[in-house]
Formats: sequence, C-alpha cells, structure tokens
Amino acid sequence: MISKNTVKFIKSLQQKKFRKQENAFFVEGSKNVTELLLSDFEVTHLLYTDKYFEEQQKLIDTCKGECFQVTPKNLEAAGSFKTNDGALAVAKLKDNSPFDIEKGELAIALDDVRDPGNLGTIIRIADWYGIKKLIFSKETADFYNPKVLNSSMGSFTRVSFFYTELKDYLPQQQLPVYGAFLEGDNIHSKTITEGGIILMGNESKGISDVLAPLVTQKLTIPRFGHAESLNVAIATAVICDNFKRNS
Amino acid sequence: MISKNTVKFIKSLQQKKFRKQENAFFVEGSKNVTELLLSDFEVTHLLYTDKYFEEQQKLIDTCKGECFQVTPKNLEAAGSFKTNDGALAVAKLKDNSPFDIEKGELAIALDDVRDPGNLGTIIRIADWYGIKKLIFSKETADFYNPKVLNSSMGSFTRVSFFYTELKDYLPQQQLPVYGAFLEGDNIHSKTITEGGIILMGNESKGISDVLAPLVTQKLTIPRFGHAESLNVAIATAVICDNFKRNS
Repeated sequence: MISKNTVKFIKSLQQKKFRKQENAFFVEGSKNVTELLLSDFEVTHLLYTDKYFEEQQKLIDTCKGECFQVTPKNLEAAGSFKTNDGALAVAKLKDNSPFDIEKGELAIALDDVRDPGNLGTIIRIADWYGIKKLIFSKETADFYNPKVLNSSMGSFTRVSFFYTELKDYLPQQQLPVYGAFLEGDNIHSKTITEGGIILMGNESKGISDVLAPLVTQKLTIPRFGHAESLNVAIATAVICDNFKRNS
Repeated sequence: MISKNTVKFIKSLQQKKFRKQENAFFVEGSKNVTELLLSDFEVTHLLYTDKYFEEQQKLIDTCKGECFQVTPKNLEAAGSFKTNDGALAVAKLKDNSPFDIEKGELAIALDDVRDPGNLGTIIRIADWYGIKKLIFSKETADFYNPKVLNSSMGSFTRVSFFYTELKDYLPQQQLPVYGAFLEGDNIHSKTITEGGIILMGNESKGISDVLAPLVTQKLTIPRFGHAESLNVAIATAVICDNFKRNS
C-alpha cells in the first residue's frame, strides 16, 4: 500500500520549488510513464493500476524504483489528472549540463517562452523533426512542469536540453542563428541546408533586443491573410518543416 | 453604472447553453474587443475602462450597443480573465448559414476538434494563410467559447464558418478533399496548386472512419524523428504552409 506521505511528496512536485528541493519530478498517464520507463531517466517511484499491470508487466519488472500497485483514485490524489487509470512515476531531474551544437546539426533555442503548453508542444515538434538539442533561456518555462511533460506527449524523453544565458551561449557556438522576424527573408524562397540554431522568442515580445543582434539570418514566414502573428509553437513547426524539406 | 444583472448576464455567456438561449457571446481584452468593434458583428454591450477610452475613443463612438465606462474590477467580475484593464463586449451570434467552396479556393473542415485552444489556434492559422472559410462537424468545440475566441487573437472576426454533418457536406462540394494520414503522399514532394478542402481530424482519433473514404488525396507530413504524431493545430499549419508555398 502507498503511504499518505508518498502521495503528499508526489503532490508537492507539481511546484517547481519542491522539484528543485527534492531533485525529482513526476509524469502521469500510461503513455508518458511507458516512455519514461523506456528512457534513461532514473525512476524512483512507480505507481500503477491493475489495468497498466496487465498491459506492461514486463516493463514494470525492469523498473528499479519502489513499485506500488494502486487504484485510479490513488493516482488522481497524487497527480494533476482528473482521471488516470494507468500509471504515475517519479524520476530524478537530469543535471543542467551544457553541450555544444555540432557543425551541420540543427538545434532550437528558446528565448523566454513562458507558456508550459507551448514549451511541451515545441518539444514534440523537435522530436518529430529529429531535432535532439534544445537550449532554453533561464526565463523559459520549467521543462519538468507537468503541463510541459503532458503536452510533449512522451517526446520529453528523447531530447537533450539545458538552461543558460543565451546571450553568452549563442556567440560561443560560432554557428548560423536563425530567427523569425516580420522583415526577414521569405522562408519559402530560401534554401537552407546547413545546420545551426533556430532561435524562437517570447509569446508576446518575440526575440529580445539583447538577442536580436546575434541572429545571423532573419527569416519570415510569408503571410497571405491578416492575422498579426503566429503562435510561437506554430511558427517553430513551420520553420522546422521548411528547413527539413531541403535536407 | 453597470447593473448586477448585466454582469450576471455576461457571466452566464461563458456557458454554451446560455449563449444559445440568449443568442449572444462576449469577448474580452483590448485587442479582441477592438477587432470585434471593427468587424461586422452586432455589438450589444460595450464595457470599457478609462484606459481603453483614452486609446480608442473614436472607435467607441461608432458602437451602437449600450456603453458602460467601468473599472477593471467590473471587467474581471463579468468575464473570464483574471486581469483585464481594457474592455469587454457582448455581440450577437451569427446565423449558422451554410456556404459553398468555390473552385480554386482553399477551405478547412474540422472533424471533431474538441479542444477550444486548438480550434482558436486553427482559426488564427487560417487567417494567417488567407483561408476565409471553415466548416465544423457538430462535435467540434463551440466557436464562441471564450477560450476559442481568446486563442484566435482576434482572427475570429475574419473567418466565415458553420457547423454541419461533414459526411453530407464534403461530397456535395465535388472538390478535392485533403486529409493527413500516416500513409499518404509526402507533402514535401507534392505540388498542390488547385484549391479544395483540408480535412483535419480529432485530437486523439484523427479523421473518423465515416469521413476517411471521402478524402480524395491522402497526405503525410514527413517525420524525421520519433514523435508519434503532431498536434492537430501544428499539422494544420504545416499543411497550409506547404499548400501556400506553391500558390
């Protein structure tokens, strides 16, 4: 049986403060938990229902953390989902270790993308387009926020990321930096085959004044109608699609 | 001064049942209200703060509905925003009048897109790509849901739409119907210059079995990584972008 204290511990991980303090986060729902168990994250607690046990008995056996067979009600008490008849797991945070982008490789940098849903969707887009490295400004939403993980649909297990000062990091890489602006080159008539870093800006302010001078290629998604702008995740997808069609 | 009853009336419009009953909906936030006042919607009530009055006095003068100068607190009591120091307006619903798609024109049909955020984002994408006509299955989220209107970022004023049985409507149009499937033609290597209807399916189930046979051209957005799928709004944007780059 699962103790009240364990439920309380998991619940606390909805808040960034406690995730930092405990060096832990949780994911919920069958799909996300399955992806987590198949990944290199270190799982410390696994809570699963009879239903999930029937579906994933072999995978559960591979888990090295504490395992608890529970009811859907237990899962709903511990997590953020209104209904969850599958599983929930707690894992350790990964270290915030910087990495470089190789020549010819494509990466995404986010400058202050605040909405967790947008961040999760961008992670899913990166995973779809085979982009494995993401770099976040310190003000970008927390990767381990349950809303980010849920909207990534399991893709959070297949990307590497770290948080840093982009104004220092971007010049160090000595690579092309692509940014979407209203007055850039038309992305439809440009062939981009080399790698580099796609820089996407904040939901309302776009790319900040500090980072704008670091963009080496300004790009524009051509507009055919009257909307003022596109959502940041939508723009990321359209840029990735245009880059990859030439690769 | 605004009466308690008017505030109560506006608040009730958060629910579809009351929107239908009252034949009315509301929009909130300066940008959305400004777009509404500039559109052909019939505004019946306009609530604005001193701040909005200073910015948009001339536009306020054109409004034929009842006007109330109010405090941000009044706006927050009537609407769904936690903070709103701009405006809120009530307008009449438009008739659910069917229309045809012209030859060579591009339209979007949604088969059971349930999430209001996705619907609003798709409306914004349609407006960006100059697509003016949208057709919704009866199970698609309600256009006048505040979350739909807010995530459309004002684009809701620039599209025409109606709800109908797609299984009857699509064949009547005698136009190409494009649908995204896992085993369709690669959208990157296909040139699509004629118009038609882009059919997008439900968030988890995709295009329904009833409508799948009506798709005349199956398309696939090529995948370069491992995500199982793309969010429906993301896929809509990528398809629109690929169609428009050839137009």
